Amino acid sequence: MIGIEEIGVHISQERISNYERKEKFGIDDHFIEEKIGVRSVARKGADEETSDLCLGACADLRAKNDFAPEEVEMLVVVTQNPDCNIPHVSAVVHGKLGLPESCACFDISLGCSGFVYALSVAKAFMQANGMRRGLLFTADPYSKVVDSDDKNTTLLFGDAAAVTLLTDAPVLVPEKFSFGTIGREHEKLTCAKGPLYMHGRGVFNFAAKTIPDDIRELLEKTGLTLDEVDRFLLHQGSKIIVETIAAKLGVPREKVPYVIHDYGNTVSSTLPILLADELAGRARTFVMSGFGVGLSWASGLLRRVDPK
Amino acid sequence: MIGIEEIGVHISQERISNYERKEKFGIDDHFIEEKIGVRSVARKGADEETSDLCLGACADLRAKNDFAPEEVEMLVVVTQNPDCNIPHVSAVVHGKLGLPESCACFDISLGCSGFVYALSVAKAFMQANGMRRGLLFTADPYSKVVDSDDKNTTLLFGDAAAVTLLTDAPVLVPEKFSFGTIGREHEKLTCAKGPLYMHGRGVFNFAAKTIPDDIRELLEKTGLTLDEVDRFLLHQGSKIIVETIAAKLGVPREKVPYVIHDYGNTVSSTLPILLADELAGRARTFVMSGFGVGLSWASGLLRRVDPK
Repeated sequence: MIGIEEIGVHISQERISNYERKEKFGIDDHFIEEKIGVRSVARKGADEETSDLCLGACADLRAKNDFAPEEVEMLVVVTQNPDCNIPHVSAVVHGKLGLPESCACFDISLGCSGFVYALSVAKAFMQANGMRRGLLFTADPYSKVVDSDDKNTTLLFGDAAAVTLLTDAPVLVPEKFSFGTIGREHEKLTCAKGPLYMHGRGVFNFAAKTIPDDIRELLEKTGLTLDEVDRFLLHQGSKIIVETIAAKLGVPREKVPYVIHDYGNTVSSTLPILLADELAGRARTFVMSGFGVGLSWASGLLRRVDPK
Repeated sequence: MIGIEEIGVHISQERISNYERKEKFGIDDHFIEEKIGVRSVARKGADEETSDLCLGACADLRAKNDFAPEEVEMLVVVTQNPDCNIPHVSAVVHGKLGLPESCACFDISLGCSGFVYALSVAKAFMQANGMRRGLLFTADPYSKVVDSDDKNTTLLFGDAAAVTLLTDAPVLVPEKFSFGTIGREHEKLTCAKGPLYMHGRGVFNFAAKTIPDDIRELLEKTGLTLDEVDRFLLHQGSKIIVETIAAKLGVPREKVPYVIHDYGNTVSSTLPILLADELAGRARTFVMSGFGVGLSWASGLLRRVDPK
């Protein structure tokens, strides 16, 4: 059974302070602390590429778990901000890491739902092809597409990457997934006309309506109650969306972490960053949910595996 | 068991003649007919988007098999030339087709190896998530990135899309795959500096060396001999690469179709276009192989299912 053995994280070190942009955008402390819940956003270096962020996450992973690169059989990168469109970022990372020629590589294009989708895709692909060790990267530096004059986006998105080591000796195993798409509303989050446009209210309403229902349905399918879940790991879109979903579910806030004050919404990396903190913890049953660009969402149930 | 039930194809109608470009590029009839094997390349309309090509392929599919859109549980688009990078094309197509909100959508970024990879990914994902009906699109209009003054690319690439209907009532079932990547050579096919750059000789040598060995290894794993394979469906990169791989395998040329004289190399769509012609035929055992951008390759074994 393939699952998550370890997770490496790389959050870009440079910060842009939202407190220093209060006047420019006419916002106050309450907006920063309680509504978006982002004091500063992480920003990659101008010369840093998406594949470089992946290498940063991989260095963190190898400090935690010094896996053998020659044993990696699959490398997936989730991104909508690749180094360039041709080739896929996974091939670039494959080359930079010196992985074996037998390693399968592909990118998945998804936004904030990407980690949950890709976890299902990668697990199924590995199992179907008899693979035992794979790397699942998320790296979507929105600084490439955010207009620094657009209050809706520039105060919110930060640059980061994560890499999830998937093996047959897992700590957490994904058991069940659900997926969804409202393609007719894709223009609510788009770069069709250049820089990122986000219809903030529209995306908020979508997530606030869809995700609590989706999580309840996922739990029904698995026969679990909300009480039996130790952690609800929600895509860290903003503080207000995490709090709204938690309130609609009626679950205790201590079960719903919110951690991005200092670096912002890192798109498909928010969930693996949350999971990285849980791997050594005691929580045993996790629901995670990602939502955004598409409009798209995915939820998944994960359970801790007892050590043999 | 999930497999291929039907395939829809859309090849853009406009053609650019290579015979009319003989003088510009200093090429002769032999080069056109025997080396690249492309007399004209298909070109999409200037306003046509990647998602529009997908809709064209879907219209062809529905003329052959009028599946119920409300039963589609997964939609995947393979492309490296999306409408735009945010959102994924699959969300746009989902919206235009009016598919249900429960449909899982994602894009896979791969070039000429993309169909084979995505067939494995989509089959594994559907089976793991209990899905019975999915659409796998390939649509990579290279006219978006090809420089019309670059002899290496403008004479070769044509615009098309295909859609493969994957169901639990298949005609052809993929049984075994192999995958590979040489990421350190990714600069041999890249848009890193703007328009598509292709190191023609380098890509040719890669495919001529790698693919025959990969097909032999795939057959060894499945216990089949070359003689037991009815068709070798090779990515239609150019006439010379298809003939070279066929010669290295030592298989009869009638088992190795080459069909792109009139429209060119359609990237990830060449293999589903070949397969579409085989669905109603008598051949029972297929090996297919895609290779290109990455550098990346994938091969797969498919077998005809006897009707119940």
